[in-house]
Formats: sequence, C-alpha cells, structure tokens
Amino acid sequence: MSTLHQDALIIDGLIISKWERAVFEDMRKGGLSAANCTVSVWEDFRGTVANIARMKQLIRANGDLLTLARSTADIEQAKKDGKTAIVLGFQNAHAFEDQLGYVEAFHDMGVRVVQLCYNTQNLIGTGCYERDGGLSGYGHEVVAEMNRVGIMVDLSHVGAKTSEEAILASKQPVTYSHCLPAGLKEHPRNKSDAQLRFIADHGGFIGVTMFPPFLQRGVNATVDDYVQALDYVINLVGEDCVGIGTDFTQGYGQDFFDWLTHDKGVNRRLTEFGPIQNPLGIRTIGEMPNLTAAMERARWPAPKITKVMGRNWLRVFAQVWGA
Amino acid sequence: MSTLHQDALIIDGLIISKWERAVFEDMRKGGLSAANCTVSVWEDFRGTVANIARMKQLIRANGDLLTLARSTADIEQAKKDGKTAIVLGFQNAHAFEDQLGYVEAFHDMGVRVVQLCYNTQNLIGTGCYERDGGLSGYGHEVVAEMNRVGIMVDLSHVGAKTSEEAILASKQPVTYSHCLPAGLKEHPRNKSDAQLRFIADHGGFIGVTMFPPFLQRGVNATVDDYVQALDYVINLVGEDCVGIGTDFTQGYGQDFFDWLTHDKGVNRRLTEFGPIQNPLGIRTIGEMPNLTAAMERARWPAPKITKVMGRNWLRVFAQVWGA
Repeated sequence: MSTLHQDALIIDGLIISKWERAVFEDMRKGGLSAANCTVSVWEDFRGTVANIARMKQLIRANGDLLTLARSTADIEQAKKDGKTAIVLGFQNAHAFEDQLGYVEAFHDMGVRVVQLCYNTQNLIGTGCYERDGGLSGYGHEVVAEMNRVGIMVDLSHVGAKTSEEAILASKQPVTYSHCLPAGLKEHPRNKSDAQLRFIADHGGFIGVTMFPPFLQRGVNATVDDYVQALDYVINLVGEDCVGIGTDFTQGYGQDFFDWLTHDKGVNRRLTEFGPIQNPLGIRTIGEMPNLTAAMERARWPAPKITKVMGRNWLRVFAQVWGA
Repeated sequence: MSTLHQDALIIDGLIISKWERAVFEDMRKGGLSAANCTVSVWEDFRGTVANIARMKQLIRANGDLLTLARSTADIEQAKKDGKTAIVLGFQNAHAFEDQLGYVEAFHDMGVRVVQLCYNTQNLIGTGCYERDGGLSGYGHEVVAEMNRVGIMVDLSHVGAKTSEEAILASKQPVTYSHCLPAGLKEHPRNKSDAQLRFIADHGGFIGVTMFPPFLQRGVNATVDDYVQALDYVINLVGEDCVGIGTDFTQGYGQDFFDWLTHDKGVNRRLTEFGPIQNPLGIRTIGEMPNLTAAMERARWPAPKITKVMGRNWLRVFAQVWGA
C-alpha cells in the first residue's frame, strides 16, 4: 500500500454491500475512513427504522472496526482511530412516507444522505427508469426540510427533470453520489455532460461509480478504466467537486439484485444488470489501495488524489451537515 | 415573586398540558427551567413520532420561550437564557411496540423519560388499574435497553409488581415521577410507605404530584396541602431524592380526560377523575412561584427548597442520561 493511500482520508460516497463483519473487515483493509452506507431502498418508515437499528447493533458489535458518523468530526476521529465511520444513507426517500416530520426523525437517528427517488416515481419525484414529471409540491417541501435539518440530497437514480428541479430548489449542495458519464456510455443511469456541468455549476457534487453495467467496458473494465471515468468528469467540472462512489454490492447474490431491479422490490422488472463483476484491481472493497495506485500511475498529483479520494466529500458533507 | 424562586433552577417532573403557546407562556411566568412533557400515552410508534415532530415544530415556533432538552447542560443553558427546556417524555412504552430498536430511535429523537405502562397491561408489564403479573421477559429487555441508551424509567402509573421488578432490574435510578402517598389517601394511583421506601432504598427518585383526584382534600386542597404531601414523602425517604411532578393538564377539557381514562383511549373506562381543579394557589403553571412561597411559609430551609424544586431532578437526570 502506498504511503499516500495510508495517510489519506478516504471516503466512499456510496456502498450498498451486505452489512456483516466480512465487509467491515474489508473496509478496514481498504483503508476507508468513511462510507455512505445504504440502509433503505424500498423499505417503508418502519422497515427503515428497523434497518437502522440493525446497523447500529452491527456498529456496536464491530466497535473495533466501526463507528457512527453524525458529523465530519466523527469521520476525522475515525481516521485517527483506524476505524471506518458509517454514514447512514438512503437510496430512496420513500421511507419519509407522507410525514414531513420523519425527515428530522431520521436525521436524529443519524441519517445524513438521502436519494430522492430510486428508479421510479414516489411522492417526491420520479426515478431515471420512467417518464419524469419533475419534483412534486411535497418534493419541494422535503428538499427544504432536508436543507433545514442537514441531510444531503442525492440524485443518482433520479430522473433528469426531477434532478434539475431539485438542484434548483436546494439551498445546499446536492449530489449525484454514484454515477458515470453518458459521454463514455449511453445508459439511463448515466449523466450527460450537460447534466454533470449543471449540478457542478450550481455548487453540487459528483461521486463517480464503477458499477459494471454502466461502465464503457462493462465486466472487462479495470481499475484504470475507473480512473479514466473520474478524469472524464474532472475534465468537465474541475477536481474540487468530484469524489468516489463505488456502489460496491459485496456479499450479495442474485436475490438482492432482483429485489433492487423490480419496482418496490417485487413489481415489474425495470432493468437487468447482467453479470456483476467490479473492475479488475478493485473487485473488492479491500482492494481500494489499488485505486490510489492507479491514480498515481495516471500521474495524478498528490493533492488531486487526496481530494478525490476523500477530502472533497469531507468538505461538502461539512457544508451540508453543518458539522 | 421571591428572589429564591427567581434564582432557583425549577424542574417539573411531569406536565401533560395542551401544547400551545398559552401554556408555554405560563411556563415562563412560572419560572420553569425544564419540564418532562408528555408526548405519548396511547399512541403507537408512528403516532408518537408525529407527536414528537409536532412538539419540535412548536419549540421552533416558540423559540423565544422554549428549547429542547437533550442533556442537563441544555437545562442549565435554558435557565441562563430565561427559557424552558422541554424534556420529551412518554407516559406509556406502548410506542416502543415490539421493536427493541425503537428505544434507541426515540432516544435519538430526544426522548429522555418513559413510563413503562399506562394504567393497563402492555407488552412490557401492567399498569396500576388491573391485576399485575409483573415485568415481562420483553420488559426486562426494554429496561436494559433504556439503561443502555439513557432513558429514565418512570413507574407512576405502573402496577405494584411490575414496579418492584423494574426497580430491581434497572441498573440506573428509576422514578415515580408524579405520585402521592397512600398514607394520606388510599387510591390505586397512590404509593404506600413501603413502596416509596423501596424505590428510594434502590437509588430511585420520587416526584410528588398534586393531581386533585389523588389528594387527601381533593379539589378543596391548597398549595399548602401540596407542601404537606411533599413533606410526608421527604420524612420517609429524605430530601435528596424528591422533586415535584405536578401533572398539570392545563388547556385540556373533558374529551381529553375521557381519552386518558379509557383503556387504549377508546375501550372500557378505567377510572373517573371527577372535577379537575388544582390546589388553590397553584391552579396554573404560572402560579409556580406560590409553591416556593408556601415552602418558605412552611419554614423549609433554602437548600431544601432549591433541591426539591429542581436540583434533585437535575442530578438524577444527569446520572441516568449520562449528560
């Protein structure tokens, strides 16, 4: 492992892996100081509170490896302690249901990043796999409430119109926490150059993913293709508002992907991922040091590497969370 | 208003008034630094989260008068700022439902005092208006979890057997937050000398109420009768583990009392309060200075007054809450 990786504060903007000790050990092996960990996709309010309770139990049971991130100070402390700070995140605001008060309740529980929609329509707006009528009236109230309490708005799986309206509505930076450029591969989940510029021009943030179905070379990609995708985005928007958002699905099998790719987990199929195999060199979370090494191979200067590997996320989290 | 009252840090261990500005203004008039304010009786998980959201909205809307108490430091700050710190409390652990994880979720939301049962049986134990089989297995888990996260166990409306077993099970001080001695009047809600000694001998705390149906002289009582009841308890257990828990129901009418006195709010009637009129001199929260004055009339030394009016609650809250 390079000294650079070892010293850097590493933040992964999105992981949706199977929450169990093997994954947490791999987070430590990979040197992650923090990760936005998905605890809600299709679950309702009660189901999501139960998921959060389970995650907190796991954090306590694996207290030698983990801590809960309520602030960026917690992330910096985790770095010092050689632990990974778990940022609680949702990939769907469905769990807010019809109760604006649930936004603050979830913030109280520690939730810090929430994607407005997951692939399809909900009370707030519409996802990227169907016709998108934009941000609803309630959606505007939800964005304002997320701004007030300090939860970051994520738009990765959100439709183009809802995304644009949310970017304009939010008084705080919003993010595509895990996306790839459509300039490298056309896909409903990938963002056009115009979309990437638009979010950046409005103070927003872009986490670049490496999820194989959205990569130019799919399952044949390597960690160097991931660096190429990062550079594509950086060339568009600069190196200060870009980070990583791997979308590791480590530990999960086909059942889980079937649940993800059907509306509400059980209704019509929305997409077919095909085989899931992360780029060679970074197939697992523990291989994260290889990403830093690939950046060094690509002759990235050290400040660019440390910013993209974590410092940029830390800065924007501090801004949105207010701590 | 006496200098003593003005300078003292006043904590009311239980208020279940109508949460609206008129009541909050009266809290300021009465000089309350903090009050344990009931936000759940018969409501389930969702209903209680909605009540908490509404209370937080009220705290924001009345920010000139109120603040939320998450710690005793918040209460001391409120005293300095001339505000009342709202302690979120339940009179029934029904809102925990069958999910142990909800205990920490509510703690995250700011809940700091929870009564295990309200008058009747729930998953945890049994209230004081029916046959009481004691603390259930799940009840033992709930008490342990409340100890872990830092929520005080309240037993005022809990049955004798469940109370005794909870006192023994809890590793932290528990409380009868609002009770009167059966030695002054026999009533299912009043506690015998033996019960009062038992909770005190186990490090617990007693808040003395003045709810007319449980008072010796009922609606004919005066603030001096309230001081007499406090002295009765202090003579039994000493002056360090006793405080006030008025049970003010200010702003509410018969509909509310009917809801309280029927099991689950709507089933069989459990008791009939009769007319509700607080003791002369302390009919409203704003008259709280008269209570201090009555203690002075009764020749209580100043340290005894300041302890019973708030300092004792502050000490035991700090111990149970861990902050």
